[in-house]
Amino acid sequence: MEKLNNQLKFLLEIDKVKGILRQSVVMGDTTRQENDAEHSWHMAICALILQEYVELSPINMERVLKMILIHDLVEIYSGDFPAYSEYSIEEKEKKELESANKIFSFLPKEQQKEYMNLWLEFELCSTNDAKYATVFDRFQGFIQNIESDGHTWRKFGPSKEKVEERMRPIAIYAPKLYKNIIYAKMEEYIKLGIIKLF
Amino acid sequence: MEKLNNQLKFLLEIDKVKGILRQSVVMGDTTRQENDAEHSWHMAICALILQEYVELSPINMERVLKMILIHDLVEIYSGDFPAYSEYSIEEKEKKELESANKIFSFLPKEQQKEYMNLWLEFELCSTNDAKYATVFDRFQGFIQNIESDGHTWRKFGPSKEKVEERMRPIAIYAPKLYKNIIYAKMEEYIKLGIIKLF
Repeated sequence: MEKLNNQLKFLLEIDKVKGILRQSVVMGDTTRQENDAEHSWHMAICALILQEYVELSPINMERVLKMILIHDLVEIYSGDFPAYSEYSIEEKEKKELESANKIFSFLPKEQQKEYMNLWLEFELCSTNDAKYATVFDRFQGFIQNIESDGHTWRKFGPSKEKVEERMRPIAIYAPKLYKNIIYAKMEEYIKLGIIKLF
Repeated sequence: MEKLNNQLKFLLEIDKVKGILRQSVVMGDTTRQENDAEHSWHMAICALILQEYVELSPINMERVLKMILIHDLVEIYSGDFPAYSEYSIEEKEKKELESANKIFSFLPKEQQKEYMNLWLEFELCSTNDAKYATVFDRFQGFIQNIESDGHTWRKFGPSKEKVEERMRPIAIYAPKLYKNIIYAKMEEYIKLGIIKLF
């Protein structure tokens, strides 16, 4: 049962995702940073509950959920690159690709190929399923941040331009979510001077 | 947008799952208990990766994943009833049903019905999809426990009978997983006297 043993090794290795901390904190406790496993779980439920607002068709929800569940496994080795921090995109892409090769190599050949391709698809954001998943990657981070009174924005003080760029997938593919949730909150934090106009 | 507001309230409320602690600990740190969000995320990936070993057909993976992602939301209000602790089954069922009614009532009527039914289906374990999800509820707990050197078993000292009963869904619906992973490890911990024969 070498195949099963390798699959088991993969399932044990990914436990490490529970120790990869994001900038966002859990609601009601600004001292406890959310980890990638919690983020992925929450993002998957957002993707299920808010489907009616996403203007992408057709999508395959099973593929979307798979993509969401595995999209942050690479951070086991590369770590998290905080969205509003300064980093080299080339370095991020290089590190994450190396990490993806490493984590998926635990799996038997066919699954290795399937999950590597799913991760690449998410990264390239080239298909409906990947765009759908990206909307909720941004959305979950957004609501987590809002509920901790803009914790991440207060820390990094991003420009309006940078926040808009980050939220663009929501604006394009789920305009009702953008209009009713994202836009109003952004305006509020701009007025507070936490999101910077200049 | 009252509907969207209610959906958003639900998505914010379920953040509390990240604070519901299980008996199992994360691997490599026996001081940090795993929470329900991490468990659900890990269980979903186990369910995807080990599909070939489950002798249940047909199954609908999208439904299975939904069921897995929401199966522990009730514990936000009812708390976790540890598998090997002593508790009243009637009390557990009563508390969890009340909790399910409470958490899913945040959702609009149609989704409330859909997710309440999915949760009930999981609890009753009456369909292929629910049985499939149950296999991985037990399996994820098992590997988490094994990787922390039987942390939960050391704490509760369960009988062989009780562990076998807990693992029965795996024995019945995924006998290859039972034979190659569960059975051997159980024998090992029986020999160590951690799982009790009498």
